[in-house]
Amino acid sequence: MTGTAAFFGSRWIEVPGHVSERPGGLPLGFRAAGVAAGIKPADALDVGLVVSDSPGTTSAARFTRSGTQSAPVLLNRERCRLGEIRAVVVNSGNANAATGLPGLEAAAGMQSRAAAACGLEADELVAVASTGVIGVPLPVQAVAAGIEAAGEALRGDGEADFARAIMTTDAFPKHVCLDVALSGGTVRLTAQAKGAGMISPGFATLLCFVQTDAALPPEVCDLLLSVTVKRSFERVSVDGQLSTSDTLILQCSGASGVEIVPETPDELHFGEALDAVLRQLALAVVRDGEGARRVGRVVVRGGDEEAVRRVARAVANSSLVKTALYGGDPNWGRIVQAVGMALPGTAPLALDVSIEGVPVCSRGSYTPHDRDALSAAVKREEVEYEIGLPGEGAESELYFSDLGHEYITINADYTT
Amino acid sequence: MTGTAAFFGSRWIEVPGHVSERPGGLPLGFRAAGVAAGIKPADALDVGLVVSDSPGTTSAARFTRSGTQSAPVLLNRERCRLGEIRAVVVNSGNANAATGLPGLEAAAGMQSRAAAACGLEADELVAVASTGVIGVPLPVQAVAAGIEAAGEALRGDGEADFARAIMTTDAFPKHVCLDVALSGGTVRLTAQAKGAGMISPGFATLLCFVQTDAALPPEVCDLLLSVTVKRSFERVSVDGQLSTSDTLILQCSGASGVEIVPETPDELHFGEALDAVLRQLALAVVRDGEGARRVGRVVVRGGDEEAVRRVARAVANSSLVKTALYGGDPNWGRIVQAVGMALPGTAPLALDVSIEGVPVCSRGSYTPHDRDALSAAVKREEVEYEIGLPGEGAESELYFSDLGHEYITINADYTT
Repeated sequence: MTGTAAFFGSRWIEVPGHVSERPGGLPLGFRAAGVAAGIKPADALDVGLVVSDSPGTTSAARFTRSGTQSAPVLLNRERCRLGEIRAVVVNSGNANAATGLPGLEAAAGMQSRAAAACGLEADELVAVASTGVIGVPLPVQAVAAGIEAAGEALRGDGEADFARAIMTTDAFPKHVCLDVALSGGTVRLTAQAKGAGMISPGFATLLCFVQTDAALPPEVCDLLLSVTVKRSFERVSVDGQLSTSDTLILQCSGASGVEIVPETPDELHFGEALDAVLRQLALAVVRDGEGARRVGRVVVRGGDEEAVRRVARAVANSSLVKTALYGGDPNWGRIVQAVGMALPGTAPLALDVSIEGVPVCSRGSYTPHDRDALSAAVKREEVEYEIGLPGEGAESELYFSDLGHEYITINADYTT
Repeated sequence: MTGTAAFFGSRWIEVPGHVSERPGGLPLGFRAAGVAAGIKPADALDVGLVVSDSPGTTSAARFTRSGTQSAPVLLNRERCRLGEIRAVVVNSGNANAATGLPGLEAAAGMQSRAAAACGLEADELVAVASTGVIGVPLPVQAVAAGIEAAGEALRGDGEADFARAIMTTDAFPKHVCLDVALSGGTVRLTAQAKGAGMISPGFATLLCFVQTDAALPPEVCDLLLSVTVKRSFERVSVDGQLSTSDTLILQCSGASGVEIVPETPDELHFGEALDAVLRQLALAVVRDGEGARRVGRVVVRGGDEEAVRRVARAVANSSLVKTALYGGDPNWGRIVQAVGMALPGTAPLALDVSIEGVPVCSRGSYTPHDRDALSAAVKREEVEYEIGLPGEGAESELYFSDLGHEYITINADYTT
């Protein structure tokens, strides 16, 4: 997960053959930095800046659907050219949410200072993101000094510092650097994301920033982001909690000179690479869910689209399923309970449940199985639950973290 | 909560003047028992029986809405005269859910044996309830022997044993005995309930059994149960998880000779007593939520009916709000986050938040407040959150337990 060859670590992610990992370095045209501005304690990096120096940069963005959006999210929607974002400025340690008009002014100040630090002619070319505690005024002076310092520290290999600067309760930074071989040449694709709590995205989640030196028309950029987000960040849950601050931005500098033409194999190949990156990053976020020990994947088949989605969400967000996952306990009765909760009024429901390929419940009733083998299987790092509903055709999957003591420890005393 | 004068312990429950607590004893016409049948370990009581010896007994019942209902719930719906239940037989330690046809046969066997043990002429006069682990075959022989033993142990003051026999992970038994003064004389009202996890009822929750020697026409019995359940068990959540087994039964023996005539002050007064009992029992269940240290009450006002209900549920089921409650942490930003999640697409939302009467957020933005005083207030046993949405008229409340280490410890290793 740290830009080494270990990035693609899950059996659930297929890595396309035309994609190869690199040790690091941003795509052509990009510079980034992360600095310590004193918002987080102990000199931790907490202000990040990433900028494309190419005037023709295209971009696409997604934000939280929350009714209580942070000031930066509101600002981006109102005062940012979302198809041509040149720079992104981020602070961690303070979400600048529930901060009213002063919060909006603080976000606008960040936007304006970042534009100046990057030498951009218009504030609207800068997107802003903040993550951390909600309801505390942003320390405007410290952030301003941080932006200035970050502007001076911008480097072509600054993505590792940037990835650290956007972390809150994350246990490890999440970033990757890839080469993607296309017909017109090789392009580079990099991404940085952070978790680790308040994660059950409506479409994006958390903060995630993606850069490439391929040239993408803005509508292709937007389309690819739509498709890949649906298969990645929309399919994970740490704690079922939608954030005030979810932000996902894809920037394309075009500096490689390789153009992605719509409806060509190159578009497909680039899309596959983006898909693999976002899915693995989403999984990394789940794996780094606050205090998480194991990652679960629930796949629901049958029924209809609405039913499979509701069941997947109910299982992934069930505190009983999540504590069983944490405990390495094959308590499949809780899967049955969660499914029943998701589909009221359907009793008796002829559902099938398998865990790690072992059928445990068939047509609503327990199936004899090797309990010891199952117990061993659910103690591994990844556990897969398959659920069959009556009917055919629909399918939904969701990745989720367990719920353990560390989540309680982290969250029971976060502000104080 | 144990039948002593300590039952009505919450500032949130108003106790009517015509209601007084008694140390114990079932209403006239009722006998109950609880015995150890070896389903739970260590000689714990695990089979309970309560019976009305009055032929004219009326009753009303509510069951879980789950799509994966336990065999006893399915049996009761199909093969029980729900308006004239004479006896209830309960086992703990095994939910008899996801057990297929053998499970239904086992439940029918319990019904039939309980009818015989109580000397009743028809199986359909007996309701059955099972609670405990899901997906494990019921130990039929042990339960049968338990029912026989319980039949021999039936007593007019057996409700304390009965209350113990229905417990699973409950830390303490929950039962009460009240006198209710009506115009025609005093009637007795008793109730027993159990928690403690898998609790976010659709209408009833968990198991709760209520007895009175007042005479209620079946339609009054049903109406009063409907009204009071909406204000009690429908308004609590331990972990947001709907059970396979929720069962609530009210039985009226009429043995006191005091009739409750519809649309009289007596109906109102009896309803008030039932209301206070169910609300306090629901609170007791929340207070005994697995590992719970504190109880929260969220009251949402404004908006519309749909919005206030969704917001109350989102706040009460938020693992972030619940861990903050556990930690005694006034992290009100998580309330803002949960509200935003419940009302997507409404940003910027001008919501107000108060904790223990202290305004912390006004029109969507933080309000300066005495943080030390607030920190002290949220470390008490009961914490109240008030949320104001734009608009007027609607109101919803919900009681919820915190989420702490004990919940993890209890649930991470429950079946093994």
